[in-house]
Amino acid sequence: MDTTLLTARDLGMLLRELGPDALMDRLIDRLRDRLRDFDPELNETRARDGFRYDKPALGLLEWMPTREVGGPVVVKMVGYHPTNPLQRNLPSVLATTSMWDSESGHLMAIADATLLTAIRTGAVSALATEVLARSGPITVGVIGLGAQAVTQVHALSRVRRVDRVLAYDTDDTAAASFADRIDFAGIPVEVMYEPALGALVASSDVLCTCTSVGIGEGPVIPLGVEHRPWLHINAVGADFPGKIEIPSDLIARATLFPDLLAQCLAEGECQAAPPARIGPELPELIRTPSQFSAQRDRLTVFDSTGWALEDEIALSVAVESAAELGLGTRIVLESIPTHPLDPYSLSVD
Amino acid sequence: MDTTLLTARDLGMLLRELGPDALMDRLIDRLRDRLRDFDPELNETRARDGFRYDKPALGLLEWMPTREVGGPVVVKMVGYHPTNPLQRNLPSVLATTSMWDSESGHLMAIADATLLTAIRTGAVSALATEVLARSGPITVGVIGLGAQAVTQVHALSRVRRVDRVLAYDTDDTAAASFADRIDFAGIPVEVMYEPALGALVASSDVLCTCTSVGIGEGPVIPLGVEHRPWLHINAVGADFPGKIEIPSDLIARATLFPDLLAQCLAEGECQAAPPARIGPELPELIRTPSQFSAQRDRLTVFDSTGWALEDEIALSVAVESAAELGLGTRIVLESIPTHPLDPYSLSVD
Repeated sequence: MDTTLLTARDLGMLLRELGPDALMDRLIDRLRDRLRDFDPELNETRARDGFRYDKPALGLLEWMPTREVGGPVVVKMVGYHPTNPLQRNLPSVLATTSMWDSESGHLMAIADATLLTAIRTGAVSALATEVLARSGPITVGVIGLGAQAVTQVHALSRVRRVDRVLAYDTDDTAAASFADRIDFAGIPVEVMYEPALGALVASSDVLCTCTSVGIGEGPVIPLGVEHRPWLHINAVGADFPGKIEIPSDLIARATLFPDLLAQCLAEGECQAAPPARIGPELPELIRTPSQFSAQRDRLTVFDSTGWALEDEIALSVAVESAAELGLGTRIVLESIPTHPLDPYSLSVD
Repeated sequence: MDTTLLTARDLGMLLRELGPDALMDRLIDRLRDRLRDFDPELNETRARDGFRYDKPALGLLEWMPTREVGGPVVVKMVGYHPTNPLQRNLPSVLATTSMWDSESGHLMAIADATLLTAIRTGAVSALATEVLARSGPITVGVIGLGAQAVTQVHALSRVRRVDRVLAYDTDDTAAASFADRIDFAGIPVEVMYEPALGALVASSDVLCTCTSVGIGEGPVIPLGVEHRPWLHINAVGADFPGKIEIPSDLIARATLFPDLLAQCLAEGECQAAPPARIGPELPELIRTPSQFSAQRDRLTVFDSTGWALEDEIALSVAVESAAELGLGTRIVLESIPTHPLDPYSLSVD
């Protein structure tokens, strides 16, 4: 019984052979289809849980399990270590994901999820933006210019014409490299500095906040800024109790759409939102977009904390696309004894 | 950054090159050392959790996370599908285990844990038996002759002289093959049939219960059986709320030693035990065995539900032993972008 292994190189080849646009489009399309058909009775997602620590470095390691009733179990393991880029030249998010057959408990696939996490986080923002943002060309503001900023802007550019990007980061080095990193998407980038943060918000049709702001150190948008009445915000960074990106005055006027309500109440922007400001979850947005057309002219927030189901879908797309292109390795990982009741009867042939 | 991969073949080679005795001894010794030094302040074990279902087959898939403060995180994923042996010619327990560096979130190792789980479950029974069973040669009774029975008897034979094994299973096929499966240990096996179950218990110095009894269908030892006053029971099978192996009359007279109290109260024999019958956890037994010498003449139960820390130790032993023998593969699993803030900058060289 073998296990499909998708390594860094396989994901790199997948990205190279399909190209970022096609890979992103596949994921956006599949997420749209699967979320449209989402039936909570047929999916069991367990609350994300994990270890949080400050030694040897500030970080967390979390497991995100999900199960299709009668179908596979997928668990993504995701590490978030904000000092990685500066201290270890590594991305702050490192992740792997695995899929099990629930008939036998056999591990069917294991894959890198670092790339897939970034792409799916962009893709769900694109889906929320499709429903909640004004139609027509948009100016996108981005606060926090790390890895997620690349896939946020890229994903938005697949569902809307993005005329320009207004970009801001507290770290000048991240800010300085952003235009190069998003260059492949062919969108003009204007990097802005702190005094212009209010202007950035005021000029945006869609805003993505994808920062590593510390717990209790938010919000990342100043209080009292002006904004277009139809501003749609994809709030991607908050994923920790006490970590928020959006200021209270915006929350008080906005409608928030959580990806997963329970999780958003625990660690998303919904933490600080009056219940009356919280709208339905992402699947309802996707299922009946016309119901939300009035929201396109109003202030909206997509509260994206990351849902294990999205990771399951991303893994499925990766496994299928890899198979199509002949990528990936099949390994025999699990020791299946020759005699199922004798753990020592292992063949080495 | 690479990840050590220990596949079925690597584990098979490890078993072949070291031999079952040396591998078991290494694990017993390491578990004894680590449990003796166990400091609850320096270890964080999260309650085992998972998905339980009856479609497409009765089963569960669980995650067992543990963390050393300042050290690695280990998560074992274990599937338990009791219909595997008869319906799919697979072991009921299939497991894999992974280790992360908590400084960066990097996945350091991934290994089959099917063999390791069986061995470590035997090894901890041996440790409890060392402390709680009469010294000198013993007769071992075994109820439930699946895969765990092999490693239970084998492990006990590494810490005590086992004169004979009295073996029982509700399934005649499992019973018929047991003597062959334990033959390598050189211990005479007497397979007994149901009418003689009382005699099996009555003649045992140490008893291992390692059955797949259904929820609410236990106990597996009949009520009212006679037993030697010094009987020590390793109760290995109960690992599910409502699943028990030991009858109430024995529980009422015994002292129970849980591996992990909270887990044993939820899913072990401690579920049905009066609080006064529950003694300290395994690490205290190992740390101060002389304190428990009087227990060697009394009825004792080691309530073994399986502790993630044991799996961490088993994985460490496997990784070290594999390195020593030049076994295992190093793969680059995680996509580390060339530029840490650009998820698309993946090298395929």
